[in-house]
Amino acid sequence: MLKRVERVKQLISKSGLDALIVTGRDNVRYLSGFTGSAGVLLVSAEKALLFTDSRYVTQAAEEAYAFEIMEIEKTWPEHLAEILSEHRDMAVGFESEHVTHQQFLRMAEVLAAVELKPVKDMVEGLRAVKEEPEIEKIRRAVSLVDEAFAEILDYIEAGRSEREIALELEFHLRHRGAERIAFETIVASGARAALPHGAASGKLLEHGDLVVMDFGAVCNGYCSDFTRTVLVGGAPEPWQEEIFEVVLEAQGAGIAAVRAGVPASEVDRVVREVIAGRGYGDYFGHGSGHGLGLQVHELPRLDRFSTETLEAGMVVTVEPGIYLPGRGGVRIEDVVVVRENGAEVLTGTAKDRLFSV
Amino acid sequence: MLKRVERVKQLISKSGLDALIVTGRDNVRYLSGFTGSAGVLLVSAEKALLFTDSRYVTQAAEEAYAFEIMEIEKTWPEHLAEILSEHRDMAVGFESEHVTHQQFLRMAEVLAAVELKPVKDMVEGLRAVKEEPEIEKIRRAVSLVDEAFAEILDYIEAGRSEREIALELEFHLRHRGAERIAFETIVASGARAALPHGAASGKLLEHGDLVVMDFGAVCNGYCSDFTRTVLVGGAPEPWQEEIFEVVLEAQGAGIAAVRAGVPASEVDRVVREVIAGRGYGDYFGHGSGHGLGLQVHELPRLDRFSTETLEAGMVVTVEPGIYLPGRGGVRIEDVVVVRENGAEVLTGTAKDRLFSV
Repeated sequence: MLKRVERVKQLISKSGLDALIVTGRDNVRYLSGFTGSAGVLLVSAEKALLFTDSRYVTQAAEEAYAFEIMEIEKTWPEHLAEILSEHRDMAVGFESEHVTHQQFLRMAEVLAAVELKPVKDMVEGLRAVKEEPEIEKIRRAVSLVDEAFAEILDYIEAGRSEREIALELEFHLRHRGAERIAFETIVASGARAALPHGAASGKLLEHGDLVVMDFGAVCNGYCSDFTRTVLVGGAPEPWQEEIFEVVLEAQGAGIAAVRAGVPASEVDRVVREVIAGRGYGDYFGHGSGHGLGLQVHELPRLDRFSTETLEAGMVVTVEPGIYLPGRGGVRIEDVVVVRENGAEVLTGTAKDRLFSV
Repeated sequence: MLKRVERVKQLISKSGLDALIVTGRDNVRYLSGFTGSAGVLLVSAEKALLFTDSRYVTQAAEEAYAFEIMEIEKTWPEHLAEILSEHRDMAVGFESEHVTHQQFLRMAEVLAAVELKPVKDMVEGLRAVKEEPEIEKIRRAVSLVDEAFAEILDYIEAGRSEREIALELEFHLRHRGAERIAFETIVASGARAALPHGAASGKLLEHGDLVVMDFGAVCNGYCSDFTRTVLVGGAPEPWQEEIFEVVLEAQGAGIAAVRAGVPASEVDRVVREVIAGRGYGDYFGHGSGHGLGLQVHELPRLDRFSTETLEAGMVVTVEPGIYLPGRGGVRIEDVVVVRENGAEVLTGTAKDRLFSV
């Protein structure tokens, strides 16, 4: 944590700020170690303060050892105002994506003596590059989804609803120690498999359906994200086989392109080139992947608009898909760590064929 | 929905606004019926528009029949700017608690020709008074928690962890048809029962523990909220019996005070008076209840700072507790509907004694 605080202090100073107010919950956790739901940080060259309420004071003192704990009795803007009252004309950054406009109005009112400056992605930028202990936590969250997927295969069969399968899957994950699921579980079967975000519905699985299963677990605060496509019943039809093979090839090409120093948009370009080259360019609308960590979607984005360059220690998904409206779809998603010489794939589940149940 | 839109149009005009931008997800759902995750409304005397992206256009057209559906290709502030470009000098309200400051900055940039005015609790105020079909949905969510609680009693025993019990409970709720749990389940046993927000931990239940169980379900978007306290093992100790009786009396007095026309703060005063009168005033820190509906915490609040007056059709919890640090605690919570002549209690589970398992 101390190293993280030092890094953010450098960024604060580099941005011409005297201090930063951190309100994003994951950013608070990342910098301080505090896991409670109500915490705000004030970081400056001299100060590292954590404001929280009476419920969390003991917990904060244990978790956020590098921070001085300040108990909030009113609202945090008022307490900040008291602390900062000695420092007129300071430039104080705040996280404009993690403050409602209502909170901003309150800050502007009570912090009238300082200059408030909106800041975007400062701590998020630091979070994009993981330390090895963070990668270990993600590895654990990934192994949970591998195990749960292996278990759920026996349960998937024609006649069960998408929702039943999602529920069963979630209970496997929770029983194995997941704190919670990382996002609403996607179980999209038959024509619904053509919906990239088809959250599990009441639809019953039918013989011949492709089923896109996209889910994740949270362990020690860190997320995993996983997709495999399952075929209900015997042999795939030729179109199912074909889109599966194109997605598999594209996903492999994407992973092969991952390496420190490569632009994130380049991975997306490589993936998209394979899919377009096989004539399915119109059926792959979303980006090729995203960073993950404390949030399931973090920096960097792996799409055509990405401006980031991959750095060693970033952890990203690679997840192309092909979606044929009215018929179905296939997506394959792994989690990989960006290393100096290439990608280290954390996901352990096989992907060289459609899972048939 | 049409009636709701008419009501909000009246409020817009009464507030001296020409239009309102609605961004709060539950507010969007309440006014339009649209249940997707990406929707923004623009409501004026002449217009009722819903902006959403390509994923949701079909769904929005089905659900939000009173609104004209506009597909977003860029960001919603840009689309709003196009729509409003013909109307200079309009006063346009926006929900300041449901817009990040970053979104506000974007709005201010592209909507420079109109006057943006922060608005708070306009739609939330309408939502506080429920229509009968909404009460029916809450009734269903309440009956689910009644059923799940009856089922979980057999499972609660010394040696099980709080987390195991919470997970089992959630499983019951989901299998019975809950879309999701309404908030992180509280199972707080022994000394942890003295923590009003003691989310289920790895602690094992022990003989003689009081266990505060506070949980809720979401059905058709509407929440329930429920608390009972369970004793692990035979007969309660005198102090356990005593705080149970005081909380029961206070909760009954609170429910008896609920009636249309009564200030919300009055219910809290009555509850607090019983607890203070028995010498436990220092051990009941939180408010006596809160409205619930699409959110588990809505207007009105039932605490000493409430400014609302209870109206027929409001749905609120009544939930006093006593928390003795280091020893344990008791809380009892029911959901009640405010009627002209008193409270209609929706919660069906008995509460006249500590549940002993």
